Amino acid sequence: MNIALLGFGTVGKAFYELTLGRSDLRVTSVLSRRPRPELPCTVTNDFDEIVRDRSVGIVVEVMGGLEPAYRYICAAMRAGKHVVTANKQLVCAHYDELLELAKECGVSLRCTAAAGGGIPWLTSLSRAARLDEITAVGGILNGTTNYMLSAMTASGVDYTTCLREAQALGYAEADPTADVEGYDARRKLVLSANLAFGASVREEEIPCFGISSVEEKDFAAWRELGRVCKLFVRAERHEGRVSAFVCPTLFPAASPVAQTNGTGNLVTLRGARFGELSFSGAGAGGYPTGSSVLSDCVDVIEGCPSFYVSRHEAKHIDNSAAAGRFYLRMGSEAVCTGPITVAEAFARAERARSCGEPVFLARIEEE
Amino acid sequence: MNIALLGFGTVGKAFYELTLGRSDLRVTSVLSRRPRPELPCTVTNDFDEIVRDRSVGIVVEVMGGLEPAYRYICAAMRAGKHVVTANKQLVCAHYDELLELAKECGVSLRCTAAAGGGIPWLTSLSRAARLDEITAVGGILNGTTNYMLSAMTASGVDYTTCLREAQALGYAEADPTADVEGYDARRKLVLSANLAFGASVREEEIPCFGISSVEEKDFAAWRELGRVCKLFVRAERHEGRVSAFVCPTLFPAASPVAQTNGTGNLVTLRGARFGELSFSGAGAGGYPTGSSVLSDCVDVIEGCPSFYVSRHEAKHIDNSAAAGRFYLRMGSEAVCTGPITVAEAFARAERARSCGEPVFLARIEEE
Repeated sequence: MNIALLGFGTVGKAFYELTLGRSDLRVTSVLSRRPRPELPCTVTNDFDEIVRDRSVGIVVEVMGGLEPAYRYICAAMRAGKHVVTANKQLVCAHYDELLELAKECGVSLRCTAAAGGGIPWLTSLSRAARLDEITAVGGILNGTTNYMLSAMTASGVDYTTCLREAQALGYAEADPTADVEGYDARRKLVLSANLAFGASVREEEIPCFGISSVEEKDFAAWRELGRVCKLFVRAERHEGRVSAFVCPTLFPAASPVAQTNGTGNLVTLRGARFGELSFSGAGAGGYPTGSSVLSDCVDVIEGCPSFYVSRHEAKHIDNSAAAGRFYLRMGSEAVCTGPITVAEAFARAERARSCGEPVFLARIEEE
Repeated sequence: MNIALLGFGTVGKAFYELTLGRSDLRVTSVLSRRPRPELPCTVTNDFDEIVRDRSVGIVVEVMGGLEPAYRYICAAMRAGKHVVTANKQLVCAHYDELLELAKECGVSLRCTAAAGGGIPWLTSLSRAARLDEITAVGGILNGTTNYMLSAMTASGVDYTTCLREAQALGYAEADPTADVEGYDARRKLVLSANLAFGASVREEEIPCFGISSVEEKDFAAWRELGRVCKLFVRAERHEGRVSAFVCPTLFPAASPVAQTNGTGNLVTLRGARFGELSFSGAGAGGYPTGSSVLSDCVDVIEGCPSFYVSRHEAKHIDNSAAAGRFYLRMGSEAVCTGPITVAEAFARAERARSCGEPVFLARIEEE
């Protein structure tokens, strides 16, 4: 099957390389603003040319951003082409419309590379959801913050220096907001919860605390508690209600989650009857993420359904029953709370922040 | 699709329950020596009746053992029925013939429940092998020995007492030989290596050291080294050669493998370009294993190919390049060797054993 590739950055290039020598699929055109004489295929800056090309069966979108990516993939589906994308922002923002459009157009839409990098997470999750009721999903789904937290835990370097190092290594973007504030992880949580629960939840309803206000004294306090901090996402379904939040979380130092270092991701699902399954691997990087894109393309060739799940029932987030103990630092004073709800913990942090105090919030995982 | 279920033990019962309420498949007959008036479906002790029943699309075999299971699943395939089995012993012993027969008969043969219990390991492995060259597989694939080693590490209980406890809890069989000597893990390694490398390797060519000669003093020595012992399987492909062995292995105490306790399994594959992916979950138990059987049935309904891989090139095991350091206890004397080949380590252990000395061998995992 012929593929048109939109975007030729790290993931696009790696995906292109991974397709070389395959007999089942090949990249026949690349959308690129600048000429790429090194490529033997068609290189164009005109998306309409790609849409009109009847020989293209799959459009792979790895450009990122909302526009023009949204316009492109809608046009591709309307032209009867399957779409494989790594764009979590786009799929989260237009979840319901995209699923409906794929169904309407009789094409497949896949976005495995959008969550977990090289881990076949969304595929495994949707396969598990065919077998049992999925009651919870959770994990480390952002490589940037995991790299930074691992480095700060290991070396005691401060946040600003660590961010600069991560940027120099290509692990953090020039504008790191989406990663360090937890928005990237939250989008991956939205996709995970939607597939796990047959739901459609809204990104902005999910409380989200990032790592940008973390300080060296926090790490010192956690070391004394025998804990390691990870930016963790979690969603649960209980009696029809969906709880979900993104929050730094303190794990026992010897636990597998605490041992997930660098840009590694680790993610877990729980089936009501079959129990927990965990998946870990590279959460970022060209070849791992490119492999997930390739996996989607192979699934498309093998005739996968229009989307991972057929249901997308609108669900509001309800964190009133989700509870836990929290580490809450306001100014230079840190406390470990007793059991409180997630809603209460986020409200306390928000109140302190609105008073102008520097605040850090972390959930304490039960052992 | 209608299913005939051969065997109604722990896995068979759980699988049956998991199918209740599904619209895509249902168990319409159960092969059982004794009457089961509680079941609303056909219960028969005559397999020929099942083979002749044209309404049966899938035969699920969870009886275990070589015969009559082998005869049954061959007859089922010849009658045009798909086969899903959890029987690693059977699939290992007749690997080439079964693959050929499935292809010849135009049916699917699946055995995901045969390795890793509830972990979708063989499926994930074969999916990964579509994307990249798989260069290594390895992991904890036996729940019984992992339960026993975890218990002995935690409580200092001796081997015989621990085995008796495991038997009382249903984690070890009355005849524990296949588990404690590593044969069960070796069969799972055969299936893993075959799928990963498109190979067909022979069980009896893979060196295998079990845990039945472990003593309390070994645990004391490992504790001093900051290590935890796991029965680990490993296979690698390098320049066309396949190395494979089953051996107790000492991991750093804080590593994710060392933290895999009880009947949990953890298994890892390495792609030449996309890197490592790990999977962990329940390695045994009715619902987890039954879920893997169910997953295979759903894949069959969705039209999966005749087997996970199409190639099964005969490969001899060559451990001449596989090397490492080893913990070798002969009698009451333990030594940690320098780097030696796996072949040499097993030969040393064998020599000592043939002199009548109690011997324990463990590979020391590099940090």
